Amino acid sequence: MEPVTQPPKHRVVIIGGGFGGLYAAQSLKNADVDVTLIDKRNFHLFQPLLYQVATGNLSPADISSPLRSILSRQKNVRVLMEEATDIDPETQQVMTSRGAIPYDSLIVATGVSHHYFGNDQWKDDAPGLKTIEDAIEMRRRIFSAFEAAEKETDPEKRKALLTFVVVGGGPTGVELAGAIAELANHTLKQDFRSIDTTEAQILLIEGLDRVLPPYPADLSVKAAESLTKLGVTVRTKTKVTQIDGDNLTLEYDETRETISAKTILWAAGVKASGVGRVISDRTGASLDRVGRVMVESDLSVPNHPSIFVIGDLAHCADPEGKPYPGVAPVAMQEGKYVARLIKARLSGQSLPRFLYKEFGSLAVIGQNAAVANLGGVHLSGFIAWFIWIVAHIYFLIEFDNKLVVMIQWVWNYVTRSRGARIITDTTLVPGESPSVRSRKEEPVNV
Amino acid sequence: MEPVTQPPKHRVVIIGGGFGGLYAAQSLKNADVDVTLIDKRNFHLFQPLLYQVATGNLSPADISSPLRSILSRQKNVRVLMEEATDIDPETQQVMTSRGAIPYDSLIVATGVSHHYFGNDQWKDDAPGLKTIEDAIEMRRRIFSAFEAAEKETDPEKRKALLTFVVVGGGPTGVELAGAIAELANHTLKQDFRSIDTTEAQILLIEGLDRVLPPYPADLSVKAAESLTKLGVTVRTKTKVTQIDGDNLTLEYDETRETISAKTILWAAGVKASGVGRVISDRTGASLDRVGRVMVESDLSVPNHPSIFVIGDLAHCADPEGKPYPGVAPVAMQEGKYVARLIKARLSGQSLPRFLYKEFGSLAVIGQNAAVANLGGVHLSGFIAWFIWIVAHIYFLIEFDNKLVVMIQWVWNYVTRSRGARIITDTTLVPGESPSVRSRKEEPVNV
Repeated sequence: MEPVTQPPKHRVVIIGGGFGGLYAAQSLKNADVDVTLIDKRNFHLFQPLLYQVATGNLSPADISSPLRSILSRQKNVRVLMEEATDIDPETQQVMTSRGAIPYDSLIVATGVSHHYFGNDQWKDDAPGLKTIEDAIEMRRRIFSAFEAAEKETDPEKRKALLTFVVVGGGPTGVELAGAIAELANHTLKQDFRSIDTTEAQILLIEGLDRVLPPYPADLSVKAAESLTKLGVTVRTKTKVTQIDGDNLTLEYDETRETISAKTILWAAGVKASGVGRVISDRTGASLDRVGRVMVESDLSVPNHPSIFVIGDLAHCADPEGKPYPGVAPVAMQEGKYVARLIKARLSGQSLPRFLYKEFGSLAVIGQNAAVANLGGVHLSGFIAWFIWIVAHIYFLIEFDNKLVVMIQWVWNYVTRSRGARIITDTTLVPGESPSVRSRKEEPVNV
Repeated sequence: MEPVTQPPKHRVVIIGGGFGGLYAAQSLKNADVDVTLIDKRNFHLFQPLLYQVATGNLSPADISSPLRSILSRQKNVRVLMEEATDIDPETQQVMTSRGAIPYDSLIVATGVSHHYFGNDQWKDDAPGLKTIEDAIEMRRRIFSAFEAAEKETDPEKRKALLTFVVVGGGPTGVELAGAIAELANHTLKQDFRSIDTTEAQILLIEGLDRVLPPYPADLSVKAAESLTKLGVTVRTKTKVTQIDGDNLTLEYDETRETISAKTILWAAGVKASGVGRVISDRTGASLDRVGRVMVESDLSVPNHPSIFVIGDLAHCADPEGKPYPGVAPVAMQEGKYVARLIKARLSGQSLPRFLYKEFGSLAVIGQNAAVANLGGVHLSGFIAWFIWIVAHIYFLIEFDNKLVVMIQWVWNYVTRSRGARIITDTTLVPGESPSVRSRKEEPVNV
């Protein structure tokens, strides 16, 4: 008898282990395919809570789960910690620094990074928040500013050290500004001897006429009220025209004003990952204004039905032609959809177009303060905050057993304590020991 | 009536917020003194658990507490995040980059860093474990080695990637080796597809004839047995004569052997912080072989009764002339003693010499495996492990409310999960986005 040779399995390659890529991989669990998930980091990051790392409420590992451990039991997935450098649609391969990986279906989900609207020179003065390293750097800047203010005797310099500017009034900006206000007005209140942390100024700058522009107008009003109550100065219809070191120039109604702020944080814009450009170069696909790939209604790249782009990197329009927002639930549903589509195709079927089912949107401002738009029902205050907490704990537990960490987190939240406000310096050389220089200086009052 | 002028308060300056400095500050709580605590970091580090950060079990913030928050309610303490650069015993001042701080009593507690016995060139190939940054770097190396092994097709190179060498069989070396063995044999077992992590080799190298040399000999035997059971190869009477990249030369009984190991971790020796040299230069105090300051039996510097050196930086001999060991309990008791002595002096009294009261010593090897010497009672196995856990939780809670984190930790320990095994790269520039290079490579099997 001839041995029965198995046909080679359909190979799915996924680039990016964010919400889109991970949900795609997980939704292929029972499919008769070989999945390779490529990510240059070894963990999935729960990005919606990154601002809590930046403000010392959570540790990086609390919102990160090793991809291998999430997918440990799913034996048809192989995780590869690697950077995709190129794709070749003709030979159907993804290039990495260690060689090419062949695919039958390719899912690209590499997301976005921040964007300075042509002012990339602002990057060092106003860092953005997309990676764990970004969050650690923000945390370092925020807490170092308070430390430096404690030592500063010049009132002007002290004021600049205690001025925190968040550029961008979207969900991330609102969350950051609210969290910094809670730090200044509650958490750190008793900790310093020379400064009164409640004198800190927290400015939230938004170019449009209200914060949380994608939300219904009444919720934007509620959010601005909550921010003001927390001690945040909300400046709408205000544009940032210049950032130079500690100096920030604002334009409002054709009036310009320069303020001094040691800590400027960027939450104003995103641009697509560079992989979008590669896909465009190799497939001829169009990119939108921020570099996202214009995909078909089934999330495939035009004329390349076996290449899919999902999540923040994809520009996918709803039936009315409006693009879906760059949020985690869209990415998750897109990942699931593409997995179902691949399975359908393998059995010779097809699927109707992708439709995003929106359950609602939630933005948190501070303790007991959030806004929620749940299927047209507008909520704010404690009830929105409570829904926000429950929703986030639910999703965190789904990936990994973060339950105990989440108890810690609720505990922090309720007690207004911030256990993770350590300053670790990414520029400090590991192993560097306390050095002592022999140098005398003038006495100073401390 | 003349206004009553208060006499200026006695100023105590403490350099270093480790166990010695922090306990000294806390023990001055009800004293009528002004305390300034100087540390270049903003947090107290619970160093005995640093190896758990290095092996992905805990997050940095889990074992770090902001000094300000620990001392928040103690109004006679001011915390200064600053580096001491020099001291001047004549004018009684501590120099910092921002000026001089006058003192009436000075307590120096800047600890130790690792020591390569004249082979400082080994530092990059075999990092040590003293700071949070050291631990993050070790964690990066350990988990990156498994990631690289998964991709490596050359069997020799793969073997080197899966070989972990810990140099030094003291408590830190034993704990590190045991934790890596648990990672390889349990935690990571299901996570990879190309490698079998249980084939990893973990070597513990000790120059003397047994591990845990300061412990009673029967406990050293127990510890070695537990390590072997966990999968660690214990090599005693073995010296490291050369480290060059991945190559490590060992000498045993005049026989030399070179092995290839991608991950070499240093737990072999310490030397005193550079502040010891400064004290010696300024006061004429002697230093011992590893740079610790030889102090009087009341922990003061000879001929300088108002300068104290405590903790790992101090060489303080017991009444038989044997120096007290460099462990946290000694530092804590020294901090308390000096605080009491300062208070006694202020009321015109004195104290008998410092005597360390030893309650016992504990070293953990892995789950359910530890050794303990409690007042002459030798324990090992589960009971020693349980005492170790309870003791550490007790001390962690004393500083800060780490109770919930500790529940997480016990949970990890029991389930053998390691939630914090993320690879964060200290060399990665914050804000760096996923870059894509256009470069084609040869196909490779992955």
